[in-house]
Amino acid sequence: MSYQILNSEILPDYVLTIDWCREVLGEGEDLVVTEIGDGNLNYVYRVTRPGAENRSLIVKQAVPFLRMVGEEWPLSKDRMIIEIRALQAYNRIAPDFVPDIYHADENMYVLIMQDLGEVNVLRYDMIEGVAFPNIGEDIGRFLAVTLFKTSYLGMESIERRKLMGEFTLNDDLCKLTEEFIFTFPFIDHESNYENRPTNEHALALFRSQPEYMKRVLHFKELFLAKADALIHGDLHTGSPMAGPGETYVIDSEFAFFGPFGFDVGKIIANFLMSYTSHFHRDGGPKYQAWILEEVRNIWTTFEREFLQMWADSPASALLFDGFLDDQDLAAYKTAFMKQIFQDAIGFGACSLARRTVGIAGVADIRDIEDPNQRTRLEKMNIDLSFRLMMAHEEIGDIDALIAVIEQFYEEAMQLS
Amino acid sequence: MSYQILNSEILPDYVLTIDWCREVLGEGEDLVVTEIGDGNLNYVYRVTRPGAENRSLIVKQAVPFLRMVGEEWPLSKDRMIIEIRALQAYNRIAPDFVPDIYHADENMYVLIMQDLGEVNVLRYDMIEGVAFPNIGEDIGRFLAVTLFKTSYLGMESIERRKLMGEFTLNDDLCKLTEEFIFTFPFIDHESNYENRPTNEHALALFRSQPEYMKRVLHFKELFLAKADALIHGDLHTGSPMAGPGETYVIDSEFAFFGPFGFDVGKIIANFLMSYTSHFHRDGGPKYQAWILEEVRNIWTTFEREFLQMWADSPASALLFDGFLDDQDLAAYKTAFMKQIFQDAIGFGACSLARRTVGIAGVADIRDIEDPNQRTRLEKMNIDLSFRLMMAHEEIGDIDALIAVIEQFYEEAMQLS
Repeated sequence: MSYQILNSEILPDYVLTIDWCREVLGEGEDLVVTEIGDGNLNYVYRVTRPGAENRSLIVKQAVPFLRMVGEEWPLSKDRMIIEIRALQAYNRIAPDFVPDIYHADENMYVLIMQDLGEVNVLRYDMIEGVAFPNIGEDIGRFLAVTLFKTSYLGMESIERRKLMGEFTLNDDLCKLTEEFIFTFPFIDHESNYENRPTNEHALALFRSQPEYMKRVLHFKELFLAKADALIHGDLHTGSPMAGPGETYVIDSEFAFFGPFGFDVGKIIANFLMSYTSHFHRDGGPKYQAWILEEVRNIWTTFEREFLQMWADSPASALLFDGFLDDQDLAAYKTAFMKQIFQDAIGFGACSLARRTVGIAGVADIRDIEDPNQRTRLEKMNIDLSFRLMMAHEEIGDIDALIAVIEQFYEEAMQLS
Repeated sequence: MSYQILNSEILPDYVLTIDWCREVLGEGEDLVVTEIGDGNLNYVYRVTRPGAENRSLIVKQAVPFLRMVGEEWPLSKDRMIIEIRALQAYNRIAPDFVPDIYHADENMYVLIMQDLGEVNVLRYDMIEGVAFPNIGEDIGRFLAVTLFKTSYLGMESIERRKLMGEFTLNDDLCKLTEEFIFTFPFIDHESNYENRPTNEHALALFRSQPEYMKRVLHFKELFLAKADALIHGDLHTGSPMAGPGETYVIDSEFAFFGPFGFDVGKIIANFLMSYTSHFHRDGGPKYQAWILEEVRNIWTTFEREFLQMWADSPASALLFDGFLDDQDLAAYKTAFMKQIFQDAIGFGACSLARRTVGIAGVADIRDIEDPNQRTRLEKMNIDLSFRLMMAHEEIGDIDALIAVIEQFYEEAMQLS
């Protein structure tokens, strides 16, 4: 089938041409199509058979432009091929964390997958102050298994380079990240958010702090050049979906071989922006304490599981079993994990700025109606970005990171 | 044409089926075919029309195994596709340094190119003690233009990722480098060179120096994961060919997107192994002084030309013009070049070990018949590898590097 943009009217006929979809949807009343996406890049629909339980599926289609801007910002549809490939890779290595794929059509740039049902986008639950018991651990485990098993530590050399080759066509979306995360938020750019007091605060800070700017550039360089593992590439709190006892990660169209610390830092930054928002929202100190505890759980679970897999596979593209003796290997691993940790803090600092003054900020804060409250919290995010970026090389472990964050917020509240 | 291994008998008929080759070779006496390759991976022939000037060409064919080991070490022939693509890229960005391509056949894994005539493989001239006036500058310029113009500093984001995508299939030869440069020489491996006193000296040193081993592992990690630019991947003194006033670089089948410092360090290490060899060979202190001067020229030319191109293109995948002010950008560039320099020293240290105790050592030293002399010089290379690796983070510029090398050789001669 040649490319055409699907819509609610033609979708029922389209999905019923596919065997597995017919099987999932069964027979009965006319199908109901609901657009559920709030994404910037694609259309996402839920197709349901009314009155029949579990008879539904999700359809995602790429369109050839950046949806939030419009047709004047063209984008290759290749991102759907990338999403399919990443989802296939995740289905192999982390099947508990991703939906099943019912159908993928590279010409139509369509992916049809399992409806995850009673799970919600984490961000909206966090806005409401919902605390899930295992979310930090689940995310930490997802990060560990996907990053380790696609890296030179978890793969053999040739197998790894072949997988890398599957993701090099993701040039459009890599460029988006390069510009929207690592460049535009830090300069006076037309694409930035328009809240003058926040933008002026940010620009004044950035212009007076060249060391901060040089570090941003360093992390852009890492993003451009360090191909450690298959990274999700867009792991904010809008990507994991959580329900009682289960967590799924979706929206992998930004996936490519990038630096270890990127996904880790981005998701932690999104937790921190939720923390900031609850100075205004209803969660209060108790919910904020829960958020920090989950940040701790993300890192400690990630580190523990990553090291466990490393212990279980002593030979890889990087390591020849016995190359270092046990004691030296242990020291090497400690330094290796610390580097990932500190890089994650730096990437997190970039994300904090990007989601505050860049285009498409987090709903946690952008949706606050009182402009004074919103501005106050936005400035806090910018200052936190600065604090973390300038301190990242001195923060040795998760306890130290939590302490820096707590101290930052304490001081920020005294000032504001 | 489906794949068949060419040989001297069938080559004349084969090349005459190709228009451009017929044109180059003209008419006259029967063609003469000479095997000229000493490579480990391919067959290389010169095809000449006797009695006619400039009527010749070079034929290179990949075979599906590692030639120096034999058919039991299979290798994908994809390396010829890589060599063709790299040569095409070099023809665009550095045409003065590479031969013209007359014909490329991906099914036959054959590349037919310009016969460079009166130029010799640099290594053999250096063994004879021949000093070319411009060799360091030429190599420095080749490195600068090829590395800068294929990096995130010299390319726009999407164009760069597309070029990267052309080279991801080079998994076989990348694995070869990973193992033969960064792993096997440092352990007791069956593929290593068999000269017991040298190997025992090296192994004893490496086993007693875990910090050295950890640094080797760090450079292997960079080689695996840092995709700065299109690197040649095998730039030893057997790759550049030099004649009066001209230098060509050939044998680009190892090319892929790798770290900036790799090619720079590898070629410098090969110059140093020639230096070592001339304690025994006829060059003596005068030739050794020339070698060090050319090492200096490689780096200073590389750095100057690289920075010149950077000044000429202020916007790139990495840099948005004006992101840093002039003073901060200058400081960023200084730190950037120093990192390339120190990485080059580390990669050079790995190369020194690899070409001394690994398989396929340099002819400069392996061809020395007196076993005591050979062993003495091999141990010197191993010790130089150690000295450079342990000092690389403290060596701030080329003067300091030259001083460390001179001091090393002085001490080594006093000891031996």
